Amino acid sequence: MVEIYQDERLDQLIAEKLQIIQSSSVFSFSLDAVLLANFAQIPTRAKTIVDLCTGNGVIPLFLSPKTRGKIIGVELQERLADMAQRSVKLNHLEDKITIIQDDLKQAPTLIGKDKVDIVTCNPPYFTSRPTSQKNPNEHLAIARHEIHTNLEEVIRTTSELLKMNGKAYFVHRPERLVDILTTMASYRLAPKKIRLVYPKMGKDANILLIEGIKDGKQGLKIQAPLYVFDENDDYLPEVRAMLYGKEE
Amino acid sequence: MVEIYQDERLDQLIAEKLQIIQSSSVFSFSLDAVLLANFAQIPTRAKTIVDLCTGNGVIPLFLSPKTRGKIIGVELQERLADMAQRSVKLNHLEDKITIIQDDLKQAPTLIGKDKVDIVTCNPPYFTSRPTSQKNPNEHLAIARHEIHTNLEEVIRTTSELLKMNGKAYFVHRPERLVDILTTMASYRLAPKKIRLVYPKMGKDANILLIEGIKDGKQGLKIQAPLYVFDENDDYLPEVRAMLYGKEE
Repeated sequence: MVEIYQDERLDQLIAEKLQIIQSSSVFSFSLDAVLLANFAQIPTRAKTIVDLCTGNGVIPLFLSPKTRGKIIGVELQERLADMAQRSVKLNHLEDKITIIQDDLKQAPTLIGKDKVDIVTCNPPYFTSRPTSQKNPNEHLAIARHEIHTNLEEVIRTTSELLKMNGKAYFVHRPERLVDILTTMASYRLAPKKIRLVYPKMGKDANILLIEGIKDGKQGLKIQAPLYVFDENDDYLPEVRAMLYGKEE
Repeated sequence: MVEIYQDERLDQLIAEKLQIIQSSSVFSFSLDAVLLANFAQIPTRAKTIVDLCTGNGVIPLFLSPKTRGKIIGVELQERLADMAQRSVKLNHLEDKITIIQDDLKQAPTLIGKDKVDIVTCNPPYFTSRPTSQKNPNEHLAIARHEIHTNLEEVIRTTSELLKMNGKAYFVHRPERLVDILTTMASYRLAPKKIRLVYPKMGKDANILLIEGIKDGKQGLKIQAPLYVFDENDDYLPEVRAMLYGKEE
């Protein structure tokens, strides 16, 4: 029996026929996580997949039907790691998904260096300066601002975890593209694919999806753009299928 | 009277009501140049605009109706610089456009450092290795492969020419994005806008347009994508307007 606390709710991941514990006052997943889970290509031979900054475990849950490998979610915040752990139980995925509550910097020590096939991460997007406006809710602030980790730490840790030719998948903001590419280069992650997500036709991109290969060769491809909403603010078919499954 | 040589032809830049001397055995402009000329934003106060690797002068010609400033095209190859010069004459633009035949590295000495408002460049795209397959036609090989210049030289020269807050506009291949961004960063050009050009819906991007500002602040925007062809291989309206002018 899995307990659901008072400020929590149980949402359906309809496309994957799974349930997830969420809470608007603590953490609920965003479209970005769904986009990342769909962007990540999990080869059938992948044995170990690590999701850093896993929050309530949305990415491990989304990836679980796509792999026979083990998925490890790492989350610093106890409250969130506990939610993730309960969602894993709720879906009877204890054999497939493990949640580690710790600082992501500990992941290479806990999981092993140069051993992981795939690392995914939906990190905090915003640099944290003493003057930055942050969410007064600490849980949400930590998830959004680089308070306890930052881009360099995420990328360095990812690279430490990955085996040679292992793949990293990040979702971030296009504004950080230069930082992302230069930091990936410093930590042996060759960018291979970028997909830009646009809220609508004619607008600037607001989400960046990027794949890197550890010790990979040059040869970046920028894939076809993904649009989220049509002119009536309804989800376009590609995104609708990610959220609600393909229509029969 | 402007002479047109036997292997040359006179083409119309319909959108701009100008004529340009071209030659399939020496140089004829590509869509990339047209896209760059349209991507470049020329503020009315701009006094000096420099186009590096100007070829047959297509970008100065395209920019000429958009500015009251002076445009200087720099081209290494004598044969191409001569074509550009004759096209300038043909359009009676000698007061507005100057063509310098020289190595682009000489441009800061010839034009002046930290003085230019706008630099545009459609450089050779392909790195040149002894083993690279190159066009046997030397004129075309030089325009396409980094034989006499390379990305770093183009970006360094651009930065030397530009005044503080001056703007650089480059067209290149998406595969070179990492090189472009890291080299721009080394030479004080902050990337501000990227526009990706896709041959068709659903395909990978094949052209990258980028704006950088000398000593500019962070804050990159990735603009709405540009598609070139529709499913019948006809130009889509935005590109058609660049080539043939807006329909009334």
